[in-house]
Amino acid sequence: MWYDSRVPIFLATEVDDLTTAQPYEMTVSQASEAIALRSLSPVELMRSLLERSSAQDPVLRVWETLDEDAAMEAARRSEQALSKNETIGRLQGVPLGVKDIFNTQGMRTSSGSPIYANFVPDHDSTAVARLKGDGAIVMGKTVTTEFASFDPPPTRNPWGLDHTPGGSSSGSAAGVAARMFPAALGSQTAGSVLRPASYNGVVGFKPTLGRISRHGVFTVSWSVDTLGYFTRSVEDAALLLDVLAGHDPLDTASSDTPVEPYRQAATAGGKPPRIGLVRDFFFERADADVRNHTERVAATLADAGAHVEEIRVSADFDDMLAAHRVVMSVEMAAVHQQVFETRADDYAPHARETIEAGLLLPGITYVQSQRIRRRFRRSMEKAASACDILLTPTTATPAPRDLGTTGDPWFQTPWTTVGFPTITLPCGLSSDGMPLGIQLATGRFSESKLLAAASWCETVLGKDGEAWSTPPDRN
Amino acid sequence: MWYDSRVPIFLATEVDDLTTAQPYEMTVSQASEAIALRSLSPVELMRSLLERSSAQDPVLRVWETLDEDAAMEAARRSEQALSKNETIGRLQGVPLGVKDIFNTQGMRTSSGSPIYANFVPDHDSTAVARLKGDGAIVMGKTVTTEFASFDPPPTRNPWGLDHTPGGSSSGSAAGVAARMFPAALGSQTAGSVLRPASYNGVVGFKPTLGRISRHGVFTVSWSVDTLGYFTRSVEDAALLLDVLAGHDPLDTASSDTPVEPYRQAATAGGKPPRIGLVRDFFFERADADVRNHTERVAATLADAGAHVEEIRVSADFDDMLAAHRVVMSVEMAAVHQQVFETRADDYAPHARETIEAGLLLPGITYVQSQRIRRRFRRSMEKAASACDILLTPTTATPAPRDLGTTGDPWFQTPWTTVGFPTITLPCGLSSDGMPLGIQLATGRFSESKLLAAASWCETVLGKDGEAWSTPPDRN
Repeated sequence: MWYDSRVPIFLATEVDDLTTAQPYEMTVSQASEAIALRSLSPVELMRSLLERSSAQDPVLRVWETLDEDAAMEAARRSEQALSKNETIGRLQGVPLGVKDIFNTQGMRTSSGSPIYANFVPDHDSTAVARLKGDGAIVMGKTVTTEFASFDPPPTRNPWGLDHTPGGSSSGSAAGVAARMFPAALGSQTAGSVLRPASYNGVVGFKPTLGRISRHGVFTVSWSVDTLGYFTRSVEDAALLLDVLAGHDPLDTASSDTPVEPYRQAATAGGKPPRIGLVRDFFFERADADVRNHTERVAATLADAGAHVEEIRVSADFDDMLAAHRVVMSVEMAAVHQQVFETRADDYAPHARETIEAGLLLPGITYVQSQRIRRRFRRSMEKAASACDILLTPTTATPAPRDLGTTGDPWFQTPWTTVGFPTITLPCGLSSDGMPLGIQLATGRFSESKLLAAASWCETVLGKDGEAWSTPPDRN
Repeated sequence: MWYDSRVPIFLATEVDDLTTAQPYEMTVSQASEAIALRSLSPVELMRSLLERSSAQDPVLRVWETLDEDAAMEAARRSEQALSKNETIGRLQGVPLGVKDIFNTQGMRTSSGSPIYANFVPDHDSTAVARLKGDGAIVMGKTVTTEFASFDPPPTRNPWGLDHTPGGSSSGSAAGVAARMFPAALGSQTAGSVLRPASYNGVVGFKPTLGRISRHGVFTVSWSVDTLGYFTRSVEDAALLLDVLAGHDPLDTASSDTPVEPYRQAATAGGKPPRIGLVRDFFFERADADVRNHTERVAATLADAGAHVEEIRVSADFDDMLAAHRVVMSVEMAAVHQQVFETRADDYAPHARETIEAGLLLPGITYVQSQRIRRRFRRSMEKAASACDILLTPTTATPAPRDLGTTGDPWFQTPWTTVGFPTITLPCGLSSDGMPLGIQLATGRFSESKLLAAASWCETVLGKDGEAWSTPPDRN
């Protein structure tokens, strides 16, 4: 059976919401279940999302590429497959946003750069191929910062149009928050999934480095780049991992560590986790809103039965951040070297500066930086092994009221550089009404444990229906 | 049972040799079996080896450090353990040579450098600890080139005193050839085990990168360094791997790929292997003696039943060699950077030049070189998957009649840089009476397959008793 039927529970607890809700408000799990039950058609869902998109995108600038006719045509084909009762996938008929650094066959993939503005790949990246193979529809390509670096994109934050949506997966995050699509692919080399997820009040998930193949995705820094995605629930994050996880010989960093039934782990309803609250580094850098919010969340989780204790991390975070920057600069320079020789003027300022620095850095600085990363990882492994999950704020502040930045990646980078799986849950608002998140992490390849604990936290902290779950509607 | 008893076979087939042979002529397997049977005492064996050593070393310069009293004392302790019937190891009472870059607790470890001339480690490297844990005795420390680089050492080749013994594991190779110890540890970053093994007419074995922990061994280039050793039979190589192989969290490159019963694999007597003869690159660089020898060996193996076919390798070996040199230079520079700032004059010329180059090389050159390595590995994996073992000459020429070089590492580097297990078997003499070897290799972590095939080849090609098995005695 391709389908883990949870129909009775679904009907009993959520049907009232669904009868009144618009299809564009559904999560991936809700939509895929409704489609499997034939209570929602792929065409109806796509039409609802495209209408929502038309209303939101002129302000939010989520799309890099959207071909509405092609999207509707894909929805019709999906519906035909359903009507013929052909083998259908877990994501049958569900439209998803895809960050514009993922190659999509026959669909323009610009990587946010004028240099690749007209590049139309002849193949799908492995991640996209897996989603399509399970029935999902690539609705369109979402705005990325140039080469997934730090130059601000045109995208706006649906919670406050003069606040950054974060980056680099800016369109994917803002679009999920604005209900333009129920989930979207992103990638993280420093903080490009978790930061925009938190800034936009959605769930952002990044599995272990090596868990999802990066084949066919534009490289920022191969020793760090990790794919991830945006959803509105932990269950959706787990469901997508069931589809995306797996070994791929075309990505040299791809691991053959066995995958697990993630959605099952996330929905089984486990016991309260042992939570390690990390104040070191994070509480020094966070603003008062964020510190207070994180403390409140920790207290709420403890009240609900979790064992919460502080975990001290004996590691130099500043060394790690500097080392991470060196690695990213050198590898980015190596990727761009040839093109950059003739087209430096076609790069945005931050990308250009990063490449220029990378071209000059000595080899020994690079290799010493990699050693610093490895040493830092050992410290983090020790911390992670002392509890089920580590808890920190996701970002140092809510989304800055500044369109000239994508915010800083300090709080997400520690997990990216060590390759640990990490998830952010939206769970509050700042004093100025912007979303706040908490970041949960654990050791490599322990996604089941992370998702189960995150699901438990999500249940305790609340999800849909809370004030912080839906951005103000701008129409 | 710690001991895989092969006593009846041993007594039936080899007792005649042993009764007339001196203890110093025994292989590891022969000595450990004789000791287990109480037909040879550790003290008797050590005395024989020390006598042999006294006679040979003044000419051959194998030892960097030998404390005869301490060695005899260790042999007496081993004998006491035997007499008390304490739990004894597979290598009980067997003396081994150890290259002087392996830390040995309480025993000077110079790494061949005046800078570390008086360094006495407070711990054993993991490899040495494992050998000791299985009953072996560290007889002494063998000459290494300075920091396992390319500066010629004082050691001489027992087959011809004006020929290089090769390097960097010079003393270990020459000492096994000269019967000063039955086996010795070495390490290979380019060709430092297989090359001197071939030049000295002994078996040299290097397992997969990650199979033996490098903890406590002076680093040349951490992304390439691989430990290995010298023996006089394939069975001994397999026996030592049984002792040395295994995961060690103290070496970040250490693999947890399961180990196998290697000695059993090597002695089971399998069917003739499918052999892939690689002429590409190797035959262009080899001299006529080496080419002819390799062809003869391939024909002999085919006559004995092996399936031999040529395997073409579509890879640029010159690119790979250049990339390997960059990686080695940058990593060596990173290791030495601090000490080199104040003590550059205390480095030998080749080590100094390598470090100076490494300090100047840009980061992008390093990372592009690592990419070239990865690409080369994919080509070699394809070649290796087409047969059981790949066959090439071990070296381009026999040991050069030149004490100003350690020979070139071209033929061994391809396997080191990709991390494949590889073994050299002595099996002939050149027109000027110097040893020739063949090099066998296979894909990563397939040591059982390699050792079984090597054992089959060894049986076909002959071993002890052949003209090429024993260097001329210089006393």
